[in-house]
Amino acid sequence: MARTITASLDVMGGDKGPAVVLPGADLMLRHHEGLRFRLFGDEKLVRPLLDQYPHLKAASDFEHCEVTVRMEDKPSQALRRGRGKSSMWRAIEAVKEGAGFAVSAGNTGALMAMALFCLRGENNIDRPAIAGVWPTLKGDAVVLDIGATIGADAEQLFEYAVMGAAMARALFDKERPTVGLLNIGVEEVKGLEEIRLAGQMLKEADLPYLDYAGFVEGDDIGKGTTDVVVTEGFTGNIALKSAEGTATQFAAYLREAMGATFASRVGYFLARDAFKRVRAKVDPRQKNGGAFLGLGGLVIKSHGGTDAEGFASAIEVGYSMAKSGIVEKINHDLSAHRQAVAASDKVANTGAM
Amino acid sequence: MARTITASLDVMGGDKGPAVVLPGADLMLRHHEGLRFRLFGDEKLVRPLLDQYPHLKAASDFEHCEVTVRMEDKPSQALRRGRGKSSMWRAIEAVKEGAGFAVSAGNTGALMAMALFCLRGENNIDRPAIAGVWPTLKGDAVVLDIGATIGADAEQLFEYAVMGAAMARALFDKERPTVGLLNIGVEEVKGLEEIRLAGQMLKEADLPYLDYAGFVEGDDIGKGTTDVVVTEGFTGNIALKSAEGTATQFAAYLREAMGATFASRVGYFLARDAFKRVRAKVDPRQKNGGAFLGLGGLVIKSHGGTDAEGFASAIEVGYSMAKSGIVEKINHDLSAHRQAVAASDKVANTGAM
Repeated sequence: MARTITASLDVMGGDKGPAVVLPGADLMLRHHEGLRFRLFGDEKLVRPLLDQYPHLKAASDFEHCEVTVRMEDKPSQALRRGRGKSSMWRAIEAVKEGAGFAVSAGNTGALMAMALFCLRGENNIDRPAIAGVWPTLKGDAVVLDIGATIGADAEQLFEYAVMGAAMARALFDKERPTVGLLNIGVEEVKGLEEIRLAGQMLKEADLPYLDYAGFVEGDDIGKGTTDVVVTEGFTGNIALKSAEGTATQFAAYLREAMGATFASRVGYFLARDAFKRVRAKVDPRQKNGGAFLGLGGLVIKSHGGTDAEGFASAIEVGYSMAKSGIVEKINHDLSAHRQAVAASDKVANTGAM
Repeated sequence: MARTITASLDVMGGDKGPAVVLPGADLMLRHHEGLRFRLFGDEKLVRPLLDQYPHLKAASDFEHCEVTVRMEDKPSQALRRGRGKSSMWRAIEAVKEGAGFAVSAGNTGALMAMALFCLRGENNIDRPAIAGVWPTLKGDAVVLDIGATIGADAEQLFEYAVMGAAMARALFDKERPTVGLLNIGVEEVKGLEEIRLAGQMLKEADLPYLDYAGFVEGDDIGKGTTDVVVTEGFTGNIALKSAEGTATQFAAYLREAMGATFASRVGYFLARDAFKRVRAKVDPRQKNGGAFLGLGGLVIKSHGGTDAEGFASAIEVGYSMAKSGIVEKINHDLSAHRQAVAASDKVANTGAM
């Protein structure tokens, strides 16, 4: 029998709340036998809808929450209003109470603030990162940080690399995923000391669960040059959104061009299934589920505007990662590295005496 | 009669050198009557080919240069080997001697190093930027800095905004182009002081030739939310290349999907012209010509792997900008702003006495 993993869901999060979260969770039950749910939300809205999914209802515990964090709430506001009693807060807190991971489609800032408040300090990582799954020409890649924090020093980039590699191992079934540091190709430019230093650290550490592949450039992400791409949160967010913008542009041009002549309209009709596949493949948003890494528990952010299938894919990301014991793995990997560094420092100091 | 503008060309630059540069220049002559050329390169390679373009030959002065900067040369190496005598150096120097602008498809680092060496200090701008033309859903946009320098303080971002607006006025025929500062959408994050401050400066300056539109995100570039997008060089380069990567990905998926079934193959055949238009439209590289702004003269970097039409479009960018007197305009705009700031400081100081 499969090991039981409990997912805790903020049923009220996202543009459509229960109408997307419940069918999404129901979808996932068909794939994973050992999956159970803790559901948090407003009983007036959730209970009637939950009755329509008897399978899900049987696999879930529901808890009423009187407060719903709004999409427009600022993090500080959300904390003030929702700490202890909002569906978002309770979903996160459930991870402390034993759930394998939490998923919310609510607003990112509030979710991060609550996750930090609730799940921080249980490990030894400087700062959390948000890791996204990015479709590439060679399959998927993990890209982090895509917006948790602005700026990162060498030590933090090193931690991101370790965390991203753990995620890639969990999701892609690779024993030693390749990791690249995002950089620009102009030579002899200054100002990249932290990236250079992080590269040196990764090279010297020669970790058993991570194959450091050097610097990569912006276009290497889509090419799938490495399984993991590491950068600080400002650049990561801009890269992700620029790519999304280009995907949107491409789709719009395609629609326009296909309607331009009679021949192209007929061509479009004949090839419409192929088009759909392309559009689904290229848009980074289709891979739904940004993972908050570096906390004492796992939290997955789903896109606010997603549908039931998209929400299910966010649950899938969390499920795979929780099943691999990612939080413990990251802690273990970083501790092992730190002990190795401390030991070699000791040897070096002894040698110098 | 049109005013004469001289373009100075590094004929040896790029993957194919004269074989692309000469037909590219010849193409441009058909569009611009007043255009003349100064050509710099190795006579053994250039002269025989130039004889095949009598029209171009008649409109050009050729000068033999014994050194060619190689694509793999580091900037310092290129300067050592090529200062004073390489085709790249002489093409840049010709701007000092009266040419309206220089174009090279040679390596970016070497070109920037030589341009700095040769054309710096003639104005009062802190640092140069590379500005690119980015295709968007609403026409083109100017994006800068796409890789000249890493990092920028508020004053430098302000200067980039002024320079980008001058370029947009020259290229898009708009009197008061909109300008956005690239930022990320997460609220209450720290570390963006320089962007916030630059925004405040632009708002308060309320410049007559620039309509400051606030912060924009990565996906706003492709949407064409503003005519100009301002950011520092590291982020700008990553954004550009990420978008290029996604465009490449989209094109590859499309090719693959179109060959998948008989219907899609027929569809592709019928719609092939529409496809070509889409591919040409979405790839940021198709808009060829990164402009070095903030120097005492105008230098245009063409893509190294471009063809004759691509090189012609780099000349076109330089021609439009030179015609509008962009170097003088940028100097004028910034001086006027500085005088206004100085005057208001004086008033404020007097008032405080």
